[in-house]
Amino acid sequence: MITENQYFDGNVKSLGYETTEGKSTIGIINPGEYTFGTAQKEIMHVIEGELFAQLPGETEWKSIKAGSSFEVAADSSFKVKASVQTAYLCQYR
Amino acid sequence: MITENQYFDGNVKSLGYETTEGKSTIGIINPGEYTFGTAQKEIMHVIEGELFAQLPGETEWKSIKAGSSFEVAADSSFKVKASVQTAYLCQYR
Repeated sequence: MITENQYFDGNVKSLGYETTEGKSTIGIINPGEYTFGTAQKEIMHVIEGELFAQLPGETEWKSIKAGSSFEVAADSSFKVKASVQTAYLCQYR
Repeated sequence: MITENQYFDGNVKSLGYETTEGKSTIGIINPGEYTFGTAQKEIMHVIEGELFAQLPGETEWKSIKAGSSFEVAADSSFKVKASVQTAYLCQYR
């Protein structure tokens, strides 16, 4: 099954699927700033575009360009900002 | 705007967006075999999973694993097969 999800009034949309190593989603983030909560550990990869991420406990915004990734621990929250539509892969594992 | 598309009875779903270089979609392909037509040139990247592609005019099936890509000319058709749910990026440019 391919699940469809949307958040923040449709400014973030994703499609969910299963791999042999765990669940993943791919999605698009519209320009803007968003706060996400994690239930489990997430590995976020930028596929196209660029994200700026403020990770749990940090004040600095870090640039994550296409081809780069960052990890977020379970049960935490993080912020992302995008200035262009940005495609990402999120791996829950 | 993030567009939502589905094909083949929901066995292929994608999200469309714009980049400064042209349109792109990211999507998921369920296990199965599908024939796609192209209106313009497409660059297909496998993000997670694996596709087997039969390109226009070819009889051989080529494996495209995560991190690899293939190109398809405009106004042609190609076949893809997947044995696991596979995530892709398609760049129209």
